[in-house]
Amino acid sequence: MMSRFENDPHLQIITLAHHQIENMINIPSNTDFSIHNLPFGIFSTAGKKRAGVAIGDQIIDLTDLQASGALADLDLPNGIFEKDVLNDLISLGRPIWRGLRVRLQELIKSDDAHLVASLIPQSTAQMHLPVRIGDYTDFYSSREHATNVGIMFRGKDNALMPNWLHIPVGYHGRSSSIIVSGQPFHRPKGQMVPKDAETPIYGASKLLDIELEMAYIIGKSTELGEQVTTAQAEEHVFGLLLFNDWSARDIQKWEYQPLGPFLGKNFASSVSPWIVTLDALEPFRVDAPKQDPPVLDYLQYEGKKAFDIQLEVYLKPHGGQEHKISASNHKYLYWTIVQQLAHHTVNGCNLNVGDMMASGTISGPTKDSFGSLLELTWGGQEPIQLADGSERKFLQDYDTITIRGFCERGGIRVGFGEVTTQILPAK
Amino acid sequence: MMSRFENDPHLQIITLAHHQIENMINIPSNTDFSIHNLPFGIFSTAGKKRAGVAIGDQIIDLTDLQASGALADLDLPNGIFEKDVLNDLISLGRPIWRGLRVRLQELIKSDDAHLVASLIPQSTAQMHLPVRIGDYTDFYSSREHATNVGIMFRGKDNALMPNWLHIPVGYHGRSSSIIVSGQPFHRPKGQMVPKDAETPIYGASKLLDIELEMAYIIGKSTELGEQVTTAQAEEHVFGLLLFNDWSARDIQKWEYQPLGPFLGKNFASSVSPWIVTLDALEPFRVDAPKQDPPVLDYLQYEGKKAFDIQLEVYLKPHGGQEHKISASNHKYLYWTIVQQLAHHTVNGCNLNVGDMMASGTISGPTKDSFGSLLELTWGGQEPIQLADGSERKFLQDYDTITIRGFCERGGIRVGFGEVTTQILPAK
Repeated sequence: MMSRFENDPHLQIITLAHHQIENMINIPSNTDFSIHNLPFGIFSTAGKKRAGVAIGDQIIDLTDLQASGALADLDLPNGIFEKDVLNDLISLGRPIWRGLRVRLQELIKSDDAHLVASLIPQSTAQMHLPVRIGDYTDFYSSREHATNVGIMFRGKDNALMPNWLHIPVGYHGRSSSIIVSGQPFHRPKGQMVPKDAETPIYGASKLLDIELEMAYIIGKSTELGEQVTTAQAEEHVFGLLLFNDWSARDIQKWEYQPLGPFLGKNFASSVSPWIVTLDALEPFRVDAPKQDPPVLDYLQYEGKKAFDIQLEVYLKPHGGQEHKISASNHKYLYWTIVQQLAHHTVNGCNLNVGDMMASGTISGPTKDSFGSLLELTWGGQEPIQLADGSERKFLQDYDTITIRGFCERGGIRVGFGEVTTQILPAK
Repeated sequence: MMSRFENDPHLQIITLAHHQIENMINIPSNTDFSIHNLPFGIFSTAGKKRAGVAIGDQIIDLTDLQASGALADLDLPNGIFEKDVLNDLISLGRPIWRGLRVRLQELIKSDDAHLVASLIPQSTAQMHLPVRIGDYTDFYSSREHATNVGIMFRGKDNALMPNWLHIPVGYHGRSSSIIVSGQPFHRPKGQMVPKDAETPIYGASKLLDIELEMAYIIGKSTELGEQVTTAQAEEHVFGLLLFNDWSARDIQKWEYQPLGPFLGKNFASSVSPWIVTLDALEPFRVDAPKQDPPVLDYLQYEGKKAFDIQLEVYLKPHGGQEHKISASNHKYLYWTIVQQLAHHTVNGCNLNVGDMMASGTISGPTKDSFGSLLELTWGGQEPIQLADGSERKFLQDYDTITIRGFCERGGIRVGFGEVTTQILPAK
């Protein structure tokens, strides 16, 4: 590929350096982080956190790239990438981060020498939580999941609560305990009631479960009292992540009436480190499931508001091999992101940049697409068989769970990487 | 009172100024903000936010006081008080803010000229949210409240859920919509199901209610996986506030199953601006209600862990007079702060400085001590009569609700000021 510096004698040294390291910008054809993606994250080398964008197996060090002058005309404040979190960058507004992403695509296409010089191998960097999460809300938007859980808890005839088809049900979660891929956590302890007992005991959870979810990060704040319509909602979304909402079913079962899940959830939730922007997901829009009965006016919307994102869950026992235990898809969600945000703000509740909204467990229509062990093993009645001869009803110590997600269409691949987490024994 | 500067000729001018303005430090005998209190807050004059401590009708401008050198030996970083929130000050640790409070008491007692010079009338300052709240948790710790609500929803025989006497039940709330005293909010809109109907409608809430609560602010962070014992818990508390957890009962009723309150709560919650430290509450410790059945070991505690804080709720109709509608007390709470924190962290959930924990509605044993209109009017069946001839089942537009709270014993008064909020019509 022709470098735009090639004919400039003053830039001969740079051009030479560029040619020497040209294959550093080689982008593997099967990468999640193609030129069509360019997700944002926070990485560190030598302990220094800063903002980066993933491309192939590498990271564009945006601080270096800005220092080179390659972003000079983009209205970016000095030091905007030398931060522990992306909140300040996101707060600059959609035109700024859209413009930055387009510029990066141009620089990559043109094999820009400054961009090449800013690349750092992902293998040498550590990834961190990409945003300072203000509030975290978890929805419950998969009809299949709500139905499965409802059947197990209340029987087939009362599976869905009366409100479920009218409201994108959601609840507030704990943001302090959201951790990034790679960080392990200890099996939680708490109160639970043993089978056939009436009073609780204290101990380590025996029914530790996953929840296959996706989350999105708020990209534009609102004022208290302001409503966001379904038509406006996507302007308030920065991008999406993979999310594993760990659940201790025994703790949850005993505590959750009448005010909802608390200690059964808030010991840890795991996210992937790279935020994939809505722009990158544009080619993968599909229709969401038809809603019947019709929803109230403020929840109606037009256009393709679902995304065809393939999701996979893998379980790796201690020292063993990875097993695929589920394959689902973001498009199964009954309630769309635009409906979730219109509902969340219908009462004037305000949003802040960096807030996180999760989907709830994403289960598909068939058993191999269920998003939790609770459903995959049907309450522990049908254990999953692993290659090493062992079986799983719920998770064991030192198990590692990895969620992967990606979109593919017409030779274009946009992926989320993974969120991988190992369970350590109770302290 | 002797000034410690009186015999120093170099300080004659300061001493003179001190004598001229001596009555500025006059502390009204009935003030909430006596020398025994010294609560922390964030105030502004001319738009500039900074940390202050209330004394009588005035505020000690800590930035000015630090600049005078009067705090020079206290190990306080420069600029620590010139902040929008108290989080950085609190993060310095308990010995630091305890030491600061003791020093302020000494300076006030000695009529210190620097302190006098740092005083600003409260009437000229605007108060702000004192901390950047990370996560907000609401407990449900009043037995009387849980019983009253339980009787109304499920009948007398099933009033308390089976878990209630074993667990300090709590749930996560929304921190973005927590507002400070004086800020009004608009009546929320949302989904509700009219009486005798089966499908929801969209509209403004008709059943807007108060919840008389108190909140506390976390003063010491923990790591993920760390448990806080009941014996350690108070080390993690910076201080207490008055809290009004507004509730839209019609929205709440339709949405809250199975995952708990969401839009029925998160449109607004109001706090008082001054954080009263645990040290200031020390003289007002009392025994909490005896717990039967006995709680699990990790929830047991020793000592007087309840506080005798008198709480009052006032309703003022538009253009009318203030009416006292309830008088309750923090000491009625069945579950203590130390139990709440031991429970919250039993699963390893981490705390951050600035997190807020609220008590849940504080109802006493008699009807005039109930902490919500839902209970005071018994679900709207027994309206409250106001002096202007009108009555209230739930709140009307332009009503103002004020909660006040104070401790009094042996001539010592330590108060919380007030949290006052007006309701504006739906947008």
